[in-house]
Amino acid sequence: MRILGIDPGSNATGFGVVERRGGRLVHVAHGTLRPPRGAPLAARLEYLHGAIREVVAEYRPDVAVVEQVFVAASPRAALVLGQARGAVLSAVGATGIAVSEYTASQVKQAVTGNGRAAKPQVQTMVKRLLGLDRAPASDAADALAVAIRHAHSGRLESAGVVGSRRRRPPRRPFALRVRPLR
Amino acid sequence: MRILGIDPGSNATGFGVVERRGGRLVHVAHGTLRPPRGAPLAARLEYLHGAIREVVAEYRPDVAVVEQVFVAASPRAALVLGQARGAVLSAVGATGIAVSEYTASQVKQAVTGNGRAAKPQVQTMVKRLLGLDRAPASDAADALAVAIRHAHSGRLESAGVVGSRRRRPPRRPFALRVRPLR
Repeated sequence: MRILGIDPGSNATGFGVVERRGGRLVHVAHGTLRPPRGAPLAARLEYLHGAIREVVAEYRPDVAVVEQVFVAASPRAALVLGQARGAVLSAVGATGIAVSEYTASQVKQAVTGNGRAAKPQVQTMVKRLLGLDRAPASDAADALAVAIRHAHSGRLESAGVVGSRRRRPPRRPFALRVRPLR
Repeated sequence: MRILGIDPGSNATGFGVVERRGGRLVHVAHGTLRPPRGAPLAARLEYLHGAIREVVAEYRPDVAVVEQVFVAASPRAALVLGQARGAVLSAVGATGIAVSEYTASQVKQAVTGNGRAAKPQVQTMVKRLLGLDRAPASDAADALAVAIRHAHSGRLESAGVVGSRRRRPPRRPFALRVRPLR
């Protein structure tokens, strides 16, 4: 399964692609999309929209993942972030792939073990978990982190341990129960 | 000059097309775009993006106009509105036409003579100014109103009276001053 994580922002939108191969997590690509500074708003949003469509065409992910936004920001910041999300998500929508959302604390918890970890810790752990030579820039690291969170969740869920405090013996996912004919 | 007014919204995005022919204002089209209810967010935003591109391809406006947003709304409302604006404006950006913005009070002032007019008054005046059989629905009326504001502004600006309280004799725009060679 190939997962595209996106961290939308009006000045810098990070993206990261990871692949789950069996139990392993493999880094595919990451980067930061920067709309031309000083260009009109519509041109900047179109840049983000077009660039995300190119990323999807290039890496063909099975699913896209973004961070859920909460109402912490000011209305002005929320509007600007919303515009970037609208350009990015409408681009993903055009490709027909599913979109999942996770909260920031779910993402940090999955990557660092601490739901309130600071950004540098996220960058360090993304580098370590994916075996990269150096830590990705902040926006790309956040995008990879949300992709890792999604990969992680799939793994735990298919092992049947999510939502349970006690350890249970792993079950085969989706095992068919066949009743013999009488 | 053909003007596309847009009133972006996540549940209903109004659009209206007017044309300035000499001193006259001519209605071309208007309507309301409604993303499929219950569809995932990315699919709803992609619907808006695609529909605006179709509107531009169909009516070939020279300019698009939207209302400027102020920080009155809550962060949650601003985020949702921002997402719709991002889908819509990135679609306009892809067509390469210019985008202008006007404040709500500028629009109401232009259409009703009162910057704080209520919505029904805007609908009534849009109907009257464009000679329509009946008043357009609220979102489409707002979109037509912002297009009318732009048409209006162009007319005043080309007559050289905008920004002046006193009446001045109209000047020819961009008149060249030629100094005779000596």
